[in-house]
Amino acid sequence: MAKKILIIHGPNLNLLGQREPNVYGKVTLEKINAELKKLAKKEGVMIDTVQTNIEGEIVSLIQKAKKVYKAIVLNPGGYTHYSVAIRDAIASVKIPTVEVHLSNIYSREEFRQKSVIAPVAAGQISGFGKNSYLLGLKAAIDLIK
Amino acid sequence: MAKKILIIHGPNLNLLGQREPNVYGKVTLEKINAELKKLAKKEGVMIDTVQTNIEGEIVSLIQKAKKVYKAIVLNPGGYTHYSVAIRDAIASVKIPTVEVHLSNIYSREEFRQKSVIAPVAAGQISGFGKNSYLLGLKAAIDLIK
Amino acid sequence: MAKKILIIHGPNLNLLGQREPNVYGKVTLEKINAELKKLAKKEGVMIDTVQTNIEGEIVSLIQKAKKVYKAIVLNPGGYTHYSVAIRDAIASVKIPTVEVHLSNIYSREEFRQKSVIAPVAAGQISGFGKNSYLLGLKAAIDLIK
Amino acid sequence: MAKKILIIHGPNLNLLGQREPNVYGKVTLEKINAELKKLAKKEGVMIDTVQTNIEGEIVSLIQKAKKVYKAIVLNPGGYTHYSVAIRDAIASVKIPTVEVHLSNIYSREEFRQKSVIAPVAAGQISGFGKNSYLLGLKAAIDLIK
Amino acid sequence: MAKKILIIHGPNLNLLGQREPNVYGKVTLEKINAELKKLAKKEGVMIDTVQTNIEGEIVSLIQKAKKVYKAIVLNPGGYTHYSVAIRDAIASVKIPTVEVHLSNIYSREEFRQKSVIAPVAAGQISGFGKNSYLLGLKAAIDLIK
Amino acid sequence: MAKKILIIHGPNLNLLGQREPNVYGKVTLEKINAELKKLAKKEGVMIDTVQTNIEGEIVSLIQKAKKVYKAIVLNPGGYTHYSVAIRDAIASVKIPTVEVHLSNIYSREEFRQKSVIAPVAAGQISGFGKNSYLLGLKAAIDLIK
Amino acid sequence: MAKKILIIHGPNLNLLGQREPNVYGKVTLEKINAELKKLAKKEGVMIDTVQTNIEGEIVSLIQKAKKVYKAIVLNPGGYTHYSVAIRDAIASVKIPTVEVHLSNIYSREEFRQKSVIAPVAAGQISGFGKNSYLLGLKAAIDLIK
Amino acid sequence: MAKKILIIHGPNLNLLGQREPNVYGKVTLEKINAELKKLAKKEGVMIDTVQTNIEGEIVSLIQKAKKVYKAIVLNPGGYTHYSVAIRDAIASVKIPTVEVHLSNIYSREEFRQKSVIAPVAAGQISGFGKNSYLLGLKAAIDLIK
Amino acid sequence: MAKKILIIHGPNLNLLGQREPNVYGKVTLEKINAELKKLAKKEGVMIDTVQTNIEGEIVSLIQKAKKVYKAIVLNPGGYTHYSVAIRDAIASVKIPTVEVHLSNIYSREEFRQKSVIAPVAAGQISGFGKNSYLLGLKAAIDLIK
Amino acid sequence: MAKKILIIHGPNLNLLGQREPNVYGKVTLEKINAELKKLAKKEGVMIDTVQTNIEGEIVSLIQKAKKVYKAIVLNPGGYTHYSVAIRDAIASVKIPTVEVHLSNIYSREEFRQKSVIAPVAAGQISGFGKNSYLLGLKAAIDLIK
Amino acid sequence: MAKKILIIHGPNLNLLGQREPNVYGKVTLEKINAELKKLAKKEGVMIDTVQTNIEGEIVSLIQKAKKVYKAIVLNPGGYTHYSVAIRDAIASVKIPTVEVHLSNIYSREEFRQKSVIAPVAAGQISGFGKNSYLLGLKAAIDLIK
Amino acid sequence: MAKKILIIHGPNLNLLGQREPNVYGKVTLEKINAELKKLAKKEGVMIDTVQTNIEGEIVSLIQKAKKVYKAIVLNPGGYTHYSVAIRDAIASVKIPTVEVHLSNIYSREEFRQKSVIAPVAAGQISGFGKNSYLLGLKAAIDLIK
Repeated sequence: MAKKILIIHGPNLNLLGQREPNVYGKVTLEKINAELKKLAKKEGVMIDTVQTNIEGEIVSLIQKAKKVYKAIVLNPGGYTHYSVAIRDAIASVKIPTVEVHLSNIYSREEFRQKSVIAPVAAGQISGFGKNSYLLGLKAAIDLIK
Repeated sequence: MAKKILIIHGPNLNLLGQREPNVYGKVTLEKINAELKKLAKKEGVMIDTVQTNIEGEIVSLIQKAKKVYKAIVLNPGGYTHYSVAIRDAIASVKIPTVEVHLSNIYSREEFRQKSVIAPVAAGQISGFGKNSYLLGLKAAIDLIK
Repeated sequence: MAKKILIIHGPNLNLLGQREPNVYGKVTLEKINAELKKLAKKEGVMIDTVQTNIEGEIVSLIQKAKKVYKAIVLNPGGYTHYSVAIRDAIASVKIPTVEVHLSNIYSREEFRQKSVIAPVAAGQISGFGKNSYLLGLKAAIDLIK
Repeated sequence: MAKKILIIHGPNLNLLGQREPNVYGKVTLEKINAELKKLAKKEGVMIDTVQTNIEGEIVSLIQKAKKVYKAIVLNPGGYTHYSVAIRDAIASVKIPTVEVHLSNIYSREEFRQKSVIAPVAAGQISGFGKNSYLLGLKAAIDLIK
Repeated sequence: MAKKILIIHGPNLNLLGQREPNVYGKVTLEKINAELKKLAKKEGVMIDTVQTNIEGEIVSLIQKAKKVYKAIVLNPGGYTHYSVAIRDAIASVKIPTVEVHLSNIYSREEFRQKSVIAPVAAGQISGFGKNSYLLGLKAAIDLIK
Repeated sequence: MAKKILIIHGPNLNLLGQREPNVYGKVTLEKINAELKKLAKKEGVMIDTVQTNIEGEIVSLIQKAKKVYKAIVLNPGGYTHYSVAIRDAIASVKIPTVEVHLSNIYSREEFRQKSVIAPVAAGQISGFGKNSYLLGLKAAIDLIK
Repeated sequence: MAKKILIIHGPNLNLLGQREPNVYGKVTLEKINAELKKLAKKEGVMIDTVQTNIEGEIVSLIQKAKKVYKAIVLNPGGYTHYSVAIRDAIASVKIPTVEVHLSNIYSREEFRQKSVIAPVAAGQISGFGKNSYLLGLKAAIDLIK
Repeated sequence: MAKKILIIHGPNLNLLGQREPNVYGKVTLEKINAELKKLAKKEGVMIDTVQTNIEGEIVSLIQKAKKVYKAIVLNPGGYTHYSVAIRDAIASVKIPTVEVHLSNIYSREEFRQKSVIAPVAAGQISGFGKNSYLLGLKAAIDLIK
Repeated sequence: MAKKILIIHGPNLNLLGQREPNVYGKVTLEKINAELKKLAKKEGVMIDTVQTNIEGEIVSLIQKAKKVYKAIVLNPGGYTHYSVAIRDAIASVKIPTVEVHLSNIYSREEFRQKSVIAPVAAGQISGFGKNSYLLGLKAAIDLIK
Repeated sequence: MAKKILIIHGPNLNLLGQREPNVYGKVTLEKINAELKKLAKKEGVMIDTVQTNIEGEIVSLIQKAKKVYKAIVLNPGGYTHYSVAIRDAIASVKIPTVEVHLSNIYSREEFRQKSVIAPVAAGQISGFGKNSYLLGLKAAIDLIK
Repeated sequence: MAKKILIIHGPNLNLLGQREPNVYGKVTLEKINAELKKLAKKEGVMIDTVQTNIEGEIVSLIQKAKKVYKAIVLNPGGYTHYSVAIRDAIASVKIPTVEVHLSNIYSREEFRQKSVIAPVAAGQISGFGKNSYLLGLKAAIDLIK
Repeated sequence: MAKKILIIHGPNLNLLGQREPNVYGKVTLEKINAELKKLAKKEGVMIDTVQTNIEGEIVSLIQKAKKVYKAIVLNPGGYTHYSVAIRDAIASVKIPTVEVHLSNIYSREEFRQKSVIAPVAAGQISGFGKNSYLLGLKAAIDLIK
């Protein structure tokens, strides 16, 4: 049976397409999920996608991933910069987690240039718009090969 | 039809009247909501009020406001000082948001003197007790005129 | 006899209307004073307005206010960020002082996001253009009721 | 009737036993709760235990504790380092709250060495594994004697 | 023969009872030592207690403890915040050391919120008055069981 | 002819006696000046005293002192903490300048604990109320002997 | 004719395979270049690869790239953390540049967590070993499509 | 008619020649003004020169310059390092302003190495003694050509 | 019987006269003590003087002062900048303590410009050489009048 | 024989005219060199000009300048902000060095506002485009007169 | 008669051989002293060696060294990082002092990377185990030749 | 055959004897190399010496040392304070590297007190003039015995 990977979209990513298009682009979350599914299929893995605005739910999603998924692709959104709770969840479950960002967080406000998640992630991909997700899924697939 | 404005009370504001009365005063949230409704009526707008302790729910409330409300009056409570998620929600929806605080956050602990919300708010009103809300509603009404 | 409130406009506010209109708007100081007078009349108080570029004169104005005015509305302009002398004057006279700013100082340069005045002010209103003054006067009136 | 004390386990503590055992030990949360109950019985108090990953729910639990419990023993987990919302809840309800940590947070990463909760806690116990909880319950019992 | 534990009281703790009673309580050091002895007896261990104001003597006490004691309970007093010499002594002797503080050091001045001792201590207990010592002794006993 | 010393009282010191008496005491500036004159007479020197709220006037007073006075006793008030202009004036005229403060500036807010004047002053006396002035005058007299 | 992409390996990358294999893996630079060529061929682009230890040569390589290459994949090695000269070169030529790192720079020393290159890069990929390069080339290809 | 340029000398510059000659040289302000006039004449412009110790007067001078002068050459003296009021005046009037310093402020105390004026100046010239003024006037003339 | 005041000379003050005379002057400690005794006699008080290099002994001296002396004049020498132990001793005994320094600590290295003692001292006198002690004794006498 | 001055253009200055013209203007390096030569001729000095991207070559150029040139005009480009090696070279050769920048580095990113070169330069000229060079040459000529 | 050099071993160095052997090696202090004596003999100087845990005793040892020794080799142990008292003693006696450390303090915790002693030492040797002492003695001998 | 050690002199060390003799002494590099050769001969090792101003060449020298030399003695000159590239080269080759400095870098400017090289060096010797090299070579020889 195909290996499964969980894609978690953090807060405000449900607004994609409407939200500051100059920063985040015009593509919607549905479109991204569709492209991710297409890539997954091509690479012979299965994916589930989920979006939530609640920090603690991301924590719970990561915890439950342990039994079902081989890897996680996570865009922590605004929680990137302070959520030790999400960081601890990743460190606890030991599933390789790829952190992705649509925008280049290093060319934005000072506070966005610090990720508390990155030190426990397998790696980080930032700045390629929807491609950040596709590259992230590719990276995750390579990690679990 | 009258324009609608959303009043969001953040964490612990449901305790008003009981909570550190020397800092926050003795007035209850019900009383504040009643005065806000009275002012709204006088000014010819409609308001809805909501209180929640959960950061992600404030994010969702702001997101959904987009289709219904012309402005938001927000007391982010303790989330004022770190919630990039709420900040991003405000920046995403583009509804003018007035940040209010009962106490003068600049005469309190160092960490309370930094709001991560303020840079994306239309403006900020701080230190006038329940009047911060009334002035905030007045400001919001002026903004959507 | 009607209670009196003193409105102090700090440095460069005499240039309003000409000065960086994208930041401060196009309204002139005369216009703001006129609207303040109108509001004062409606609310049954009297106001005096004064503008000066000199820090020490603001100190003196606040000192002398003690015997004549029940409250002060102060826009400290550039002195906001370093004038301990003005801060000490406010703390000395014990007249409730409302700090107002036309622009949202929290969405501007880092150094503008720190007010040394705010900790001794009754409260602060920032970001609503000329309405910051009107809301500030309203707040001051409420404080002396 | 016996006095009641509330034990709150914050985010990721449900993973105890599986999570980084070199840091947090091998004991499970169930085992800790059982030992706490045994100690409570011996000391003549009653305890309730609860675990949640959601910051706002910890806020609500603390708020509701006011009417039922005489003291709280709280392990805020990752929220220790930034949750002003939880801090405000503790300050609001005035029930003595004992902050506990399994690991010695002062021998870990820099960011873990700052607790925003501690200044409003009655006291803090850190570094004794499951014994941090037992000592914390003992401390809480002493506080309400 | 019963295991032995050394209790070290750092600078100014000989003044207990007279010293800032609003911060440190009214109990004397003699009283604390007596309660510690009582607890030790009950738990089947022996303790020695010592107080000194001299940093280097605390270093020497810890060094010599190596051959006689199984654990140390240490209140480093003012040296908590800078004594690398005491820290190095603890790290050198490898006897588990429990750091205790009468007051909650995290609700006091900024400089008191940093312990240079804590990273090499087994754990830390802070804020419970004389109970900090009793809980600390209890913790030490558990550590050497 | 007797040597002359200039006493400069900075901003808000004209309010002495009324201003935060718990911090600055109840004595008036007139009273302090009278005591200074008495001491000067006893020590065989002459003094002039002056008070101003304007930073630039303090600069000018120091500049002009050069030809008339042998020493200066200066309480820079709120300007203590940022006036490089006053500092430069002192460094320029080379007259020994004694910095005095009524309150102990080191037991107050963080920002008051830094004097930009002190590095170019002959010395600093802080915390003795009106005696700070008298000790300062005594120190100045010794300096010019 | 196929579009061309330049791969620049910065200082010490010639040591790959020998250098701290626990951090950087055992693969050699030749092997990475071979895999990159294979991927390039598959994707229908051409690549050139170059390694240098000299900061100023990286600057010159980027400058000259302008006329020949459509994109750059750059691993700036140790220069990542301070080379404003390389940053300025990238900003000057306007060719999209993808920054890649073999190791997760965010889980290493503090000074490695700051890239002065990232703010002017199109995006950054960090932590996937040799795959960082392959994903980086993929990203570059997408950027110039 | 010849274009006019305003030269503003800030606090303590009237002492030139007497003031710390090892830092500022032995030339007097009169001499500098004479040389400036000579250069102005040669270049076909007119200049006015003014010196004041009062921050607010510099603000007013800049404001009034708007109608009369095409450029300003400003030595802000000690105000360089904190006067947001002067900075705001320059930003308001939009006349190109050249900031000059006699001494090299970057080889002096740390606090002198930060100019709050520079970000709104056209440019800055520092370290050439009286030549800083002459080069500054030359620069100003070039700017208004 | 005459009131008694304790003069404590901290580390390295026994070297006075030999030690860096350009900083500390050529006067010896014996000479200073003699002048202090003379002044004490004139003012009708008694003094004892003591010098020690050991931090903990200064702590003990302050503790024991409680029963014998009405005030303390303390030059903490190098301990000024870090001895929380001495600070705590002063805060504990409640005897007014005057902190004195021979050199102007504010015109020396950065680290010397912070006194951890000053916040609990009655006041501080710094920079007048041996006169710092004489002024300090005078201040102490005034405090106990 | 005419005195000789060396003009050194640092990294990326060879791109002038193409590089971010909104920041650096449209003039080319050739054009600047031509104007410098013209000015040199007029002033009766000779100049050589050189550009390099390599930090160590700038070091060597400065070292060799010692025997041939009387002064240096240096635009250190990106190396301005970290090259202690270049700074040391300047300090070693003792030839007066004028630091120039085309753009106003104080109105750009925070990291550009610190020059490690400036403290050892004779002076600095910043913000006047190509005129920064011409004014710099003028300043250098005055220095060697 | 042979010149004499004093070797001072600071706190915890008496534990050498037992203390964290992975950091400090297995050699004992007796062994180091023996090797130092052997080297001294070979080089024709005499040495005395002393160890103490008490900061103030190190101060006194340095003070007394003045009359007897030509140089000091000092391992300040944990006092390295904060003892201004020891620093002042070294600066006072003017005997050349060589600071030595067994471990490389620059590859350890952040706080160990700052020595307050080094600025007044003749030089510093760090990281060569017992050889640090031998090299230090060699350096001291060269200094007094 | 004798073991070989590489001596690398970084930027500006070719100027020794001419460069700031009060800081670096009057000895030339040739003289130092000659003394090093003499010591090497005496100790039975061979040395090669090299000087370069180019950071990347130091990187390459260290890389190539791997096959030929048993140890390196490196004076990184100005690169000491920022060259992560050199640091990475040292960490990569695993040859023990002794860092030496002629001057005591800890008694100079703040920025010179931080070496990015030291954490990966075997040890550091600073402040003994040419002896720093000789002691460094001695240390290197001991390391490879």
